[in-house]
Amino acid sequence: MNSILVINGPNLNRLGMREPDIYGHETLADLESRLVEYGKGLGYEVVCKQSNFEGQIIDWIHEAQETGCAGIVVNPGAFTHYSYAIRDAVASISVPVIEVHISNVHARETFRHTSVISPVTRGQIVGLGFTGYELAIQAIIKGGS
Amino acid sequence: MNSILVINGPNLNRLGMREPDIYGHETLADLESRLVEYGKGLGYEVVCKQSNFEGQIIDWIHEAQETGCAGIVVNPGAFTHYSYAIRDAVASISVPVIEVHISNVHARETFRHTSVISPVTRGQIVGLGFTGYELAIQAIIKGGS
Amino acid sequence: MNSILVINGPNLNRLGMREPDIYGHETLADLESRLVEYGKGLGYEVVCKQSNFEGQIIDWIHEAQETGCAGIVVNPGAFTHYSYAIRDAVASISVPVIEVHISNVHARETFRHTSVISPVTRGQIVGLGFTGYELAIQAIIKGGS
Amino acid sequence: MNSILVINGPNLNRLGMREPDIYGHETLADLESRLVEYGKGLGYEVVCKQSNFEGQIIDWIHEAQETGCAGIVVNPGAFTHYSYAIRDAVASISVPVIEVHISNVHARETFRHTSVISPVTRGQIVGLGFTGYELAIQAIIKGGS
Amino acid sequence: MNSILVINGPNLNRLGMREPDIYGHETLADLESRLVEYGKGLGYEVVCKQSNFEGQIIDWIHEAQETGCAGIVVNPGAFTHYSYAIRDAVASISVPVIEVHISNVHARETFRHTSVISPVTRGQIVGLGFTGYELAIQAIIKGGS
Amino acid sequence: MNSILVINGPNLNRLGMREPDIYGHETLADLESRLVEYGKGLGYEVVCKQSNFEGQIIDWIHEAQETGCAGIVVNPGAFTHYSYAIRDAVASISVPVIEVHISNVHARETFRHTSVISPVTRGQIVGLGFTGYELAIQAIIKGGS
Amino acid sequence: MNSILVINGPNLNRLGMREPDIYGHETLADLESRLVEYGKGLGYEVVCKQSNFEGQIIDWIHEAQETGCAGIVVNPGAFTHYSYAIRDAVASISVPVIEVHISNVHARETFRHTSVISPVTRGQIVGLGFTGYELAIQAIIKGGS
Amino acid sequence: MNSILVINGPNLNRLGMREPDIYGHETLADLESRLVEYGKGLGYEVVCKQSNFEGQIIDWIHEAQETGCAGIVVNPGAFTHYSYAIRDAVASISVPVIEVHISNVHARETFRHTSVISPVTRGQIVGLGFTGYELAIQAIIKGGS
Amino acid sequence: MNSILVINGPNLNRLGMREPDIYGHETLADLESRLVEYGKGLGYEVVCKQSNFEGQIIDWIHEAQETGCAGIVVNPGAFTHYSYAIRDAVASISVPVIEVHISNVHARETFRHTSVISPVTRGQIVGLGFTGYELAIQAIIKGGS
Amino acid sequence: MNSILVINGPNLNRLGMREPDIYGHETLADLESRLVEYGKGLGYEVVCKQSNFEGQIIDWIHEAQETGCAGIVVNPGAFTHYSYAIRDAVASISVPVIEVHISNVHARETFRHTSVISPVTRGQIVGLGFTGYELAIQAIIKGGS
Amino acid sequence: MNSILVINGPNLNRLGMREPDIYGHETLADLESRLVEYGKGLGYEVVCKQSNFEGQIIDWIHEAQETGCAGIVVNPGAFTHYSYAIRDAVASISVPVIEVHISNVHARETFRHTSVISPVTRGQIVGLGFTGYELAIQAIIKGGS
Amino acid sequence: MNSILVINGPNLNRLGMREPDIYGHETLADLESRLVEYGKGLGYEVVCKQSNFEGQIIDWIHEAQETGCAGIVVNPGAFTHYSYAIRDAVASISVPVIEVHISNVHARETFRHTSVISPVTRGQIVGLGFTGYELAIQAIIKGGS
Repeated sequence: MNSILVINGPNLNRLGMREPDIYGHETLADLESRLVEYGKGLGYEVVCKQSNFEGQIIDWIHEAQETGCAGIVVNPGAFTHYSYAIRDAVASISVPVIEVHISNVHARETFRHTSVISPVTRGQIVGLGFTGYELAIQAIIKGGS
Repeated sequence: MNSILVINGPNLNRLGMREPDIYGHETLADLESRLVEYGKGLGYEVVCKQSNFEGQIIDWIHEAQETGCAGIVVNPGAFTHYSYAIRDAVASISVPVIEVHISNVHARETFRHTSVISPVTRGQIVGLGFTGYELAIQAIIKGGS
Repeated sequence: MNSILVINGPNLNRLGMREPDIYGHETLADLESRLVEYGKGLGYEVVCKQSNFEGQIIDWIHEAQETGCAGIVVNPGAFTHYSYAIRDAVASISVPVIEVHISNVHARETFRHTSVISPVTRGQIVGLGFTGYELAIQAIIKGGS
Repeated sequence: MNSILVINGPNLNRLGMREPDIYGHETLADLESRLVEYGKGLGYEVVCKQSNFEGQIIDWIHEAQETGCAGIVVNPGAFTHYSYAIRDAVASISVPVIEVHISNVHARETFRHTSVISPVTRGQIVGLGFTGYELAIQAIIKGGS
Repeated sequence: MNSILVINGPNLNRLGMREPDIYGHETLADLESRLVEYGKGLGYEVVCKQSNFEGQIIDWIHEAQETGCAGIVVNPGAFTHYSYAIRDAVASISVPVIEVHISNVHARETFRHTSVISPVTRGQIVGLGFTGYELAIQAIIKGGS
Repeated sequence: MNSILVINGPNLNRLGMREPDIYGHETLADLESRLVEYGKGLGYEVVCKQSNFEGQIIDWIHEAQETGCAGIVVNPGAFTHYSYAIRDAVASISVPVIEVHISNVHARETFRHTSVISPVTRGQIVGLGFTGYELAIQAIIKGGS
Repeated sequence: MNSILVINGPNLNRLGMREPDIYGHETLADLESRLVEYGKGLGYEVVCKQSNFEGQIIDWIHEAQETGCAGIVVNPGAFTHYSYAIRDAVASISVPVIEVHISNVHARETFRHTSVISPVTRGQIVGLGFTGYELAIQAIIKGGS
Repeated sequence: MNSILVINGPNLNRLGMREPDIYGHETLADLESRLVEYGKGLGYEVVCKQSNFEGQIIDWIHEAQETGCAGIVVNPGAFTHYSYAIRDAVASISVPVIEVHISNVHARETFRHTSVISPVTRGQIVGLGFTGYELAIQAIIKGGS
Repeated sequence: MNSILVINGPNLNRLGMREPDIYGHETLADLESRLVEYGKGLGYEVVCKQSNFEGQIIDWIHEAQETGCAGIVVNPGAFTHYSYAIRDAVASISVPVIEVHISNVHARETFRHTSVISPVTRGQIVGLGFTGYELAIQAIIKGGS
Repeated sequence: MNSILVINGPNLNRLGMREPDIYGHETLADLESRLVEYGKGLGYEVVCKQSNFEGQIIDWIHEAQETGCAGIVVNPGAFTHYSYAIRDAVASISVPVIEVHISNVHARETFRHTSVISPVTRGQIVGLGFTGYELAIQAIIKGGS
Repeated sequence: MNSILVINGPNLNRLGMREPDIYGHETLADLESRLVEYGKGLGYEVVCKQSNFEGQIIDWIHEAQETGCAGIVVNPGAFTHYSYAIRDAVASISVPVIEVHISNVHARETFRHTSVISPVTRGQIVGLGFTGYELAIQAIIKGGS
Repeated sequence: MNSILVINGPNLNRLGMREPDIYGHETLADLESRLVEYGKGLGYEVVCKQSNFEGQIIDWIHEAQETGCAGIVVNPGAFTHYSYAIRDAVASISVPVIEVHISNVHARETFRHTSVISPVTRGQIVGLGFTGYELAIQAIIKGGS
């Protein structure tokens, strides 16, 4: 079965516990099991990972290229705004990558308006909650426009 | 039947004829009929409009609020980058609005990286081609996250 | 009878329906009839217009010059922040123009702090609600300082 | 009888003597007696003060709150552009404050386009000469919009 | 007979009446009949249009592509400085476009120094009065360098 | 016979050898003989000079004023972007000066978008290849607009 | 007995009356008597002063150097953000100076994030309420790190 | 016994060995044993940790919330200036966090003047050497102001 | 006897005691008696004043105009960099004003490179120590260039 | 035998697989064995390490100081542009460090033009491919200039 | 006899002919003979040079150091604003250099407000006409302050 | 024998005499004879030139292309920071160019951190003293990476 990798970045392990007015009350475990189910329904194995270490996320991106997968859905958390190293990791692979943000980052603090990673992804889905991850999985499966 | 409004802004009437390496070869008519079909499959009437006039787009946004609809999918074209008037129109209504861009604007000229409209929309879908409109329609129908 | 032109720009047709904590609960119709009454009391015909089209507002400014009037009170709405075309229209006529904003724009988002039109108007009245329009009418009638 | 405080800031004691093409030929004494008369006609005692000392203006703002008055009309002169201390003084009281500028500061040097005080006032009247003070007095008396 | 389209943007309908020290005393009608004559002398039909509506100008640019013409001479007026929508219209066609400004915009206010349209035109002619339009017509006819 | 001075600045001696996709395959000698011919046809002696030395160009501009000529056509090359000394030389004379650029500098690197010389020239012709020089010669001969 | 000078700048005389959600309900008198007590417990005379006049604060800083004291605790209020004159006063003496802010200025308006005085003080204590003054007194008494 | 967590960020393991004119000659071990003693005297267990890994620091901040502690004293070292991920970690917990810097960062290189973490901490103590950590421990124990 | 006013701004009362490597070891009294002598030799009464209060300096500038004097030499100290109020005071009089700085402010911190007062003075003398004041007195006496 | 440490930062483990038009077709293993050979020829043991973890690179820099080595050659990859923590690590040791970039970073995206690490290294070698590492090793061995 | 070198930069050979409202009607020859006379009166040989070539001015600065002279008075003209090469030449010698500008550059175009040379000169005299050169000669002769 | 051109820019003729703490005590003659020897050892004729004239350096770069040489090593001195004309000269030739700086420019004044020439060179060697020139010669001889 074809696989899709979902990577959640720093502090997303605190989903449901952290600022619930912004991120909601569901936990990371809730999100991950929902996405695994969702993938299964579409015939894909969704593999979910989370780390607060930038280096770990870069390693996972490299491995996805080497082991092969249909695409990566990544929510880089705060790394979005300064991790040129993750950007370079994404640029160094041919697997399609879609960036997801749960909240509408453009309606929050100014520093959240800029993503250093966006220019090398295939696209972004922003502000649509957990649904955003599901739409990204669909987009990977559909491929072209 | 519940309706969803799709608004395409300036120059999108030239889809398929304009810079095909960026926007593809399908025309606005192709897009619109695909979305109408897509909506029908989900039990929604998708109404598609296009204008090169900022004032016309503002009027349509106001009307959507007054006549009632499930949501608006808007690709504001180049108005994205300076039309605070469209921003205010979106902010003045309670109907959910999702902003869509066909190409990955963050990988293009600097002026395309800023949307003055994003902060008052519910979310954005960027870089996923015509599929982006379909995902936006889904997101409107699903409602919460 | 001498006339004064009042022009309201984009989204002001939604006064009373739009963000009432900022703009209050009275509608554009309420404002316009109040100003007509107010003008009558001072011996002036107050003519009120509203449009969401930048080009329409420019046309009205030109016409005011050609048909003659004592002055123009303009609330350019969001056009305030980028319409150099309206600025040039104001600069191209000799009729005095006073810019009005209902809310205190300097206490809101940063983009609302800059008016590209102010430098070519006679003055501005900001943050004083509907009363601001009445004071502007007075200022036009009084003429010099 | 209810009172309104009018504070003129630095260099306004030189009105009539200073750059008459910008500020006119009338003196501060002319302005003050005109405002006292104007207030009397509306049933208010208008008290006028002027100082070139930032600290003095802050003290007067505090006192107005303590002794009670219907509102303050302030032309902060050049302090407009950098006195965060006067801003904080205004923010620290509940008496309504309206900022007035005689000339259209937006048509002059760039540094005059920014007011650090505006965000905490109720509103501003700019470019309408001595009449601007009278309109500000009216606006205080009228209260809400 | 081959045609060339001349588009004048906002406020240029007030040529001759507006700031004559900058724009001279000749009217838009004078300019247009001069250009028609000039084109005739070179064997071309020069078609002149003017609008204060951004959307109208975009529509004309699209139509020029569809109906075919040798080139477009455009003076976008104040739209020069912010209309990314006109920029995209120019970029979406293959007809050559030359941008003209009557006055030397680089010697005027700072905001007039930037054209968002220039990067996608073939060239610009600035500061040479009505003659600039004639030179642009010549350049279109000559084609390559 | 009346004369017109054409000054080409740094690196233009390498025309035809330098980046031909930007500047074409014709050499400086080709350009100069074409302009001499062109001038002759209009009854003017066109004198062409080129230098990589800023000081030399300033000297030539001063001499043109002293010996008298109908006008100067100058392509300042890269000096365009920083030579305030050439700007001052142009401002110090009464002979009309027109600035020419072969390529559309506004479509190239950001540093090429700013000319420190433009504000003191009569006008600019940009992006029209060698033809731009001919149009500039015409504009000098025509004088007013 | 050794003394320590505590200087409170503009508007701090309104502590307890001004924005209590930011500054609390205790007054300047409360703060000053608390600090005098606190100093006494540590064998130091704490002398408290407050002024809304920048010049007065500079004079006090100079006097502290001349009459000798163990250190100065200063809350410059809004002068923090622009009074280079107070900065120079601090730099002109050898008595150690510690800057205190009651609220977390870095979580408030942008202009409050910059202190022109910080670079010439020994250190800053920010956001810790009245306790911050006590900690500053301790730090002065402890001297080195 | 109640505990307080002290986290030192990157390069602070080299205290005493690194730029002693800025950081002094005492080592991290010296600092940590001093703080443990200091805490004991106040009835608190002070737990000290150091890491050069951003992800490790984020994990510790999360754990402090989960295992419970009275507060966190953090010197984020160079992460202060760019780690929005640590900022988000601090924002995601309810345990009070105080930021400490040994040297007066505002008197050093410009990049050290900005902390991306400060806005979400309770306060900062800067420039007071090792004493700053002790004052921070006190402030945590005292709680409110 | 004709008089010249010398005004020294904030912290210059600490000359000789403050940062002697920048300002030398001579005191303000030394400077003032030297200038009085210098003036006497040229037949002028030199009157020297110093204040740390911005308002006091403004008052003195106004008085100089009213009582008449040949010119003002002003070293505004740190007010140089932000006191638009002193700038306006200088602009409001016709007495010539020359700005002096003892040290070469352009070789010091960035904030010292900008003078908001310079544009409205007749000239500046910078970096030439106490001699700078003497040269300024000479320049006032010589009048035109 | 004396040793030299070569550290490659994030994504350089993908050399030869990543954007070969920029980085060439040789792998990290190729580079490392070439440098070991090169060092051997000069009588030095070259030790090569690579990590995608910022913390790991900081640890290695500290260890190099403690265990002693002749110098460090570091290609910080994307950390170049934001890792003030690596900068501080380099500044905290006395071993000479030379920064190397394979490609000419100044000819690529703007964010690659700034190195936060350069100011504390001994020097940089940029754009010379794998040869750059060899030249850096030479420079370390030669020591002074 | 001791000598002083006076260097005038680009376009100053056109003094008296160029913008006389800014620079007056006297020529460079007038200025130079006046300065030679002035020097003679003080026992110094004043040597005057002018060039429009940056390289020539650098050569003269180097020679002044090698042949020895009491000081250099330099008016770098427009080179003031960008010639870091002249700055480095000044920094490379020990002869004192004083920068002179005839007009008050701070009251003119923004680009004239910045001197890249000032930080390495001993001082500047600005806005005092030809007298400025005489005062600079005096300052060189007086030496210390 | 193949040749390599070494060009030193402005003020490098003062090497050994100028700021020896930055540039060392060896002279330009020392550097040039060292490089000639070094080249000879590698079988190349190294030709060394120095000029303070930008135009001269441009001419030499053009000639190197025309007469043929293996490569150019250029230290543009202060021209590095503003000479877009030298940049264009480098871009106009196919001979490889390597930029060298003796000192670590990134550890000096801000203006030295930017090179306008770097983007069109093959690479840069910075901060490695005279050795940097030797390494650049090697790099030219080695060619590819």
